[in-house]
Amino acid sequence: MPTLPTLEDVRAAYSRIRGSVHRTPVLTCASLDLLCGARLFLKAENLQRAGSFKIRGALNAVLLLDEGSASRGVATHSSGNHAQGLSLAAAIRGVPAHIVMPKDAPAVKRAAVEGYGGRVTECEPTPEARARALRETVARTGATFVPPYDDPRVIAGQGTAVLELFEDSGGLDAVIGPVGGGGLLSGTAVACRGLAPGLRVFGAEPELAGDAAASLRTGTLQPAMPPKTVADGLRMPLSELTFSILRREAEGIILVSDEEIVRAMRLLWERAKLVVEPSGAVPLAAVLKESRRFAGLKVGLILSGGNADLDKIPWARDII
Amino acid sequence: MPTLPTLEDVRAAYSRIRGSVHRTPVLTCASLDLLCGARLFLKAENLQRAGSFKIRGALNAVLLLDEGSASRGVATHSSGNHAQGLSLAAAIRGVPAHIVMPKDAPAVKRAAVEGYGGRVTECEPTPEARARALRETVARTGATFVPPYDDPRVIAGQGTAVLELFEDSGGLDAVIGPVGGGGLLSGTAVACRGLAPGLRVFGAEPELAGDAAASLRTGTLQPAMPPKTVADGLRMPLSELTFSILRREAEGIILVSDEEIVRAMRLLWERAKLVVEPSGAVPLAAVLKESRRFAGLKVGLILSGGNADLDKIPWARDII
Repeated sequence: MPTLPTLEDVRAAYSRIRGSVHRTPVLTCASLDLLCGARLFLKAENLQRAGSFKIRGALNAVLLLDEGSASRGVATHSSGNHAQGLSLAAAIRGVPAHIVMPKDAPAVKRAAVEGYGGRVTECEPTPEARARALRETVARTGATFVPPYDDPRVIAGQGTAVLELFEDSGGLDAVIGPVGGGGLLSGTAVACRGLAPGLRVFGAEPELAGDAAASLRTGTLQPAMPPKTVADGLRMPLSELTFSILRREAEGIILVSDEEIVRAMRLLWERAKLVVEPSGAVPLAAVLKESRRFAGLKVGLILSGGNADLDKIPWARDII
Repeated sequence: MPTLPTLEDVRAAYSRIRGSVHRTPVLTCASLDLLCGARLFLKAENLQRAGSFKIRGALNAVLLLDEGSASRGVATHSSGNHAQGLSLAAAIRGVPAHIVMPKDAPAVKRAAVEGYGGRVTECEPTPEARARALRETVARTGATFVPPYDDPRVIAGQGTAVLELFEDSGGLDAVIGPVGGGGLLSGTAVACRGLAPGLRVFGAEPELAGDAAASLRTGTLQPAMPPKTVADGLRMPLSELTFSILRREAEGIILVSDEEIVRAMRLLWERAKLVVEPSGAVPLAAVLKESRRFAGLKVGLILSGGNADLDKIPWARDII
């Protein structure tokens, strides 16, 4: 088990990456405040470079490599936001990124990765084939594996978003972030614990991928559930590392249904005018569901990403 | 003809309204820059209170009323963003807003106005009925008519957006704003002329509502065209006032097709992750169309509003 990251690691990550990532705005929306009875501060990481917070952790990891390792590049397996974030992070340092992707991944996701300069290796769509393809890629190229969340450098980078959120909101009572593998929530929790000891940190998780809530409840790391939730960025399970951080630092995890997620997503598009992907709407779904718990409080929500498929908008049906 | 507004009027409007409106972010987007070959600075007025820039001009007009007039309220005819902006402006001052709206206006637009406290008076959907209903409302209530654009106080308020855009972008070579009735573009042009004499201001207008371009070309104020363009916020014609400002202060007007507008709107949702209504996407359509003219320049685009109908997304068709 690696050393757990601290607020100091998050601050160090921030000084490393801040010149290369957007300082995304923190937005307020009177109509959403009215709906949930809290004062919301929306950290718009959907407006981040490559469309999600993932560039923060990926870039921190890439910038921490020594010259020799960096020159051989980085590698990961992902068809989602981490693939785009790592590709852009590698491009920023000027080194190659090797991305293992299942051959049935949508063409648009592959094109996005290639748009940032990532080199795609296709594999069969099974976890075993993916792991093997990654091992082979690393062996062939000498690239360093940068995991999507099971890595203290990645976690420290993800925690930088809440530094900005806390500063731009002028202080908060609670922060809610989405939880899938737990990298973003772990970095957020570690940073918040250091920033203000009374600041409460909650995870928001789809019921259909509720392994993190079950892990915290049972005290035992639970496996992933079948990949069914509309919030496709949150289907991965916690790792030992993120589990050990979250059981210590997170106040709790709020479960929401897919219907509640789609409703929150639509509200963000309609009221806040932000294109947020389903995973990024999960924190709003949580505060709407638990509105009594947050009544009157200043609540920061991390809107984690905006890479929604505009041809598959979940509420649209036979329109125009 | 009233006195033409100046940069000083815009600055005075800004000091009046700035405590009550959002300072909307100015965003950059590497992928859009790549597409058009210019450096774009997106003034995200879709994130403004009530969903568009209209609150700026409406609030300036409302705050300029003397106590007695203000207490009798304000009135207008509109089923669009000005109705919402004026309703919220009146609520901010704590006075009534009377909104004349055609009885066939979408229920969602009426609900939005009422959500901001506006009092709706229905009329038949003809220009004559609308004018009569407004006259009757003003006579009955003593309210002051606040027009959507044909008013120097409104124009000065609309010009405040470009003050922020200019400051946050660190200087610009050109600014493009949408043009319908010409209030936003007039305020923008007046402010820019004062801010930096070399700063070029262009209007962007739908071909299907190209009366402003025709007015400038012929030197004679042209009437509205049939209300067909998808950019429903830009169907009104110029007034004598906005025509006289724009023929002096605007460098030119770029016409774009509805197809180009929908493409630009989709790009803003997909790449910039912003929900922008068709009218607000017209400036991006213009810079994409005239990319050679803007190559390498720093160009500010005013994304005027985000009140898109999420059940009628123009590219969506039989999805999910």
